[in-house]
Amino acid sequence: MHTLKELAGFIDAKLVGNGGLEIAGIASVAAANGNQLSYVISKKYTKDLKSTQAGAVILHSDLLSDCPTNALVVADVHLAFAQISHYFKPKTTHFHGIHPSAKIGNSKIAENCVIGENVTIGDGCEIGANSTISAGVVIGNNTNFQPNVVVLENCKIGNNVTVAAGAVIGSEGFGNAKDSKGNWHSIAHLGSVEIGDNVSIGANTTIDRGTLEDTQIHSGVRLDNLIHIAHNVIIGENTAIAANTGIAGSTTLGKRCMIGGMVGIVGHLNICDDVIVNAKSTVDKDIKSAGNYTGIMPLMPHKQWQNIGIWLTKLDKITRYLNIKLKNLKD
Amino acid sequence: MHTLKELAGFIDAKLVGNGGLEIAGIASVAAANGNQLSYVISKKYTKDLKSTQAGAVILHSDLLSDCPTNALVVADVHLAFAQISHYFKPKTTHFHGIHPSAKIGNSKIAENCVIGENVTIGDGCEIGANSTISAGVVIGNNTNFQPNVVVLENCKIGNNVTVAAGAVIGSEGFGNAKDSKGNWHSIAHLGSVEIGDNVSIGANTTIDRGTLEDTQIHSGVRLDNLIHIAHNVIIGENTAIAANTGIAGSTTLGKRCMIGGMVGIVGHLNICDDVIVNAKSTVDKDIKSAGNYTGIMPLMPHKQWQNIGIWLTKLDKITRYLNIKLKNLKD
Amino acid sequence: MHTLKELAGFIDAKLVGNGGLEIAGIASVAAANGNQLSYVISKKYTKDLKSTQAGAVILHSDLLSDCPTNALVVADVHLAFAQISHYFKPKTTHFHGIHPSAKIGNSKIAENCVIGENVTIGDGCEIGANSTISAGVVIGNNTNFQPNVVVLENCKIGNNVTVAAGAVIGSEGFGNAKDSKGNWHSIAHLGSVEIGDNVSIGANTTIDRGTLEDTQIHSGVRLDNLIHIAHNVIIGENTAIAANTGIAGSTTLGKRCMIGGMVGIVGHLNICDDVIVNAKSTVDKDIKSAGNYTGIMPLMPHKQWQNIGIWLTKLDKITRYLNIKLKNLKD
Repeated sequence: MHTLKELAGFIDAKLVGNGGLEIAGIASVAAANGNQLSYVISKKYTKDLKSTQAGAVILHSDLLSDCPTNALVVADVHLAFAQISHYFKPKTTHFHGIHPSAKIGNSKIAENCVIGENVTIGDGCEIGANSTISAGVVIGNNTNFQPNVVVLENCKIGNNVTVAAGAVIGSEGFGNAKDSKGNWHSIAHLGSVEIGDNVSIGANTTIDRGTLEDTQIHSGVRLDNLIHIAHNVIIGENTAIAANTGIAGSTTLGKRCMIGGMVGIVGHLNICDDVIVNAKSTVDKDIKSAGNYTGIMPLMPHKQWQNIGIWLTKLDKITRYLNIKLKNLKD
Repeated sequence: MHTLKELAGFIDAKLVGNGGLEIAGIASVAAANGNQLSYVISKKYTKDLKSTQAGAVILHSDLLSDCPTNALVVADVHLAFAQISHYFKPKTTHFHGIHPSAKIGNSKIAENCVIGENVTIGDGCEIGANSTISAGVVIGNNTNFQPNVVVLENCKIGNNVTVAAGAVIGSEGFGNAKDSKGNWHSIAHLGSVEIGDNVSIGANTTIDRGTLEDTQIHSGVRLDNLIHIAHNVIIGENTAIAANTGIAGSTTLGKRCMIGGMVGIVGHLNICDDVIVNAKSTVDKDIKSAGNYTGIMPLMPHKQWQNIGIWLTKLDKITRYLNIKLKNLKD
Repeated sequence: MHTLKELAGFIDAKLVGNGGLEIAGIASVAAANGNQLSYVISKKYTKDLKSTQAGAVILHSDLLSDCPTNALVVADVHLAFAQISHYFKPKTTHFHGIHPSAKIGNSKIAENCVIGENVTIGDGCEIGANSTISAGVVIGNNTNFQPNVVVLENCKIGNNVTVAAGAVIGSEGFGNAKDSKGNWHSIAHLGSVEIGDNVSIGANTTIDRGTLEDTQIHSGVRLDNLIHIAHNVIIGENTAIAANTGIAGSTTLGKRCMIGGMVGIVGHLNICDDVIVNAKSTVDKDIKSAGNYTGIMPLMPHKQWQNIGIWLTKLDKITRYLNIKLKNLKD
């Protein structure tokens, strides 16, 4: 807990309002309550700002007149949010063995596991050797970890989940803000990862925690090896994703999708239910109709590829040129 | 060991034949012996079914008349196989230290390694810290593991092999069957991974075990970092594969191939000997001639790419349109 | 230390010069001093050879007359270098606990870490559980490792660095030489990895050590999850790279670049400052102007893609054909 005055000091903000207010956390401007701090990055969110229940909001002076609550006024809101996020990140304090506050049901914990404060593990689980389960993690029943799994603070994992060796759940999201000198400041990710029931997660796959809300892997999802799931991604029920695929931040996938191997899905997209994306394709826009999608260059002998390469980059010019020629001929 | 009657009960199958038969394992319909169960997924395999030596076969009623042995008749053979596979998966029972039954030659085992039942390790090996070697694994001589390596049950690794940190050998294959409600059921992978001599495996690379037979990495193969090798893949001698590449299930690569970085090779393909695939290409069909192959979009300034993008997706229409125009002009 | 005569014996080289010279290491022909061995792979380096300060040079007989120092004459220089490199690779001798020679400041080391000879760790660091830090590694102040991190011999990591779970720093580069029988020989990578200040490295990311010089990650760099950085790559200050990207050997990236997810950058390239490469693109040539680059196939319904696929591989023929038709019509 920090007072609003302290927080203003941490980020060099101009405090407008009640500096004595105790702030317990950060939430989005639409979701924050009276003990929470929020932030508004642009005028796009003016409507949410006007109706916010937040105890205070970090904002640019342009938006001050629309703020119905206490404000921390700064020149760069994104940077200020990045800097202040670290004050709300719980500190890991446990480093050895199984913390006495951990509640572990009738489950097997293999050698060299480190299990943090207030971890809960149900019955019938097996936790493989050399795994680390950090403070506040909750694991259901009959969930099985192979060796060398890492689950970071406060992640929630359901029942009948299998996590293969080397998987990392709850790593920090890749969110950074640049200061005026061009240096990056990491955003501390205060959300976690929530994994439903009957999920399987492949070897060396990584799932980042959310920025403020949780990254969500719904029940029945199948993730193969070496997949990257970024912060705030939501994956709908029974969607299956093959190896080496990456899904960038804040993208939502529907239910029953089948995503091929080494597919890249960029951030902030919505993919509807029952979408098939074939291996190696790039998804760079929303998909609003169920169906089967592809976008790859066909394989060909290297020499042939060299011949067509130049035309590939000039398709617009070729088309325009041929059209003009045709027109001229006609005239 | 389960009797055929028990197995029928597990998967709600109609038993045709000798329910008292003891089944020791599962094998393909062509390879199974009289103590093994097999399955036939479609009429494509009728010929194999007719000549099978299997003790029993899981099949659809359509194929029952072609079955020369005991049968478990079900509506969904793939799902039944997925469900029954788990009854033949050996249970890991060892979780602490080096099991007394492990036979370790004149080799160095670093701290915090967990080594399971009946593991065999030859002479001159070094096993890095925090590695886990599960039951039944066999490792030859002069093989070297960096720290945090995981080798799962029954995998076989030859002589003079190097395995870099974080690699996972023998993780479950990504095979799932869907039930009538759309829920996935994992297939328990009963094969293992067999790695020859003089192989090197890169950091955080993952190699999945086979479904019934073994995934095979032949002698002299070089695998870079963060590669995914799926179940039942076979990689021929002295083939070298660069980082981030993924090879999907049941694909066979020939000898002396050189596969560039971040190449994706889809499943069930045959790639012949002496093939070069350039970085980032997608291999989506068999390659039957040695040579150098490529399939990528050239890099260009983003604005140029935006201009050609629309034409790329309309190439067939452009070509047809220009041809018609030309024809009209001619007429 | 080996005498030149011993080294000649190891690789079956013809020794020309002082066989009693003690050789302490290997360096490039331009950088080597009188106690070091070097090698010249082709006539391209004749100028460097003529002015070398190396104690000895491995070379083909064609270049012997240009060699101003002792020589080891072989038929295959690349193979000879690969074989001899292993004689200069320091042997890991420490496998248990924290070596007494390690100097650790006021920092927290979690359970099951193995820390080697002459490791230096500054103040305010946290090293997560089950991490391994090999001999000679130097880590600055306020650097934070999540669990299961592996840092191999002699790597240098600055201040305020965060390394996420499962990352591997200092794995061997993917460098191999083929012998006359077609068998690969690994090159022992004698360089290390040097990481500046304020760097963040994502979960399960791998950074290979350099062949002779160091792989360099400059201050302020941000690396997301599952990234592969090959041997001798140099990444300039404040460059940010998203997940699943791979950068091949000896490529240099400038400052302040932003590389999207799953980008592949091939080896031996120079990418200038302030370059943006969009997700999934392939960089296969130098980039000499700052700006925004893309190279991907757009996503489309699979049927549409099947229709254009044939034209994609025949673009040169279509263009030529249409041009001839037009010309004929004109005539």
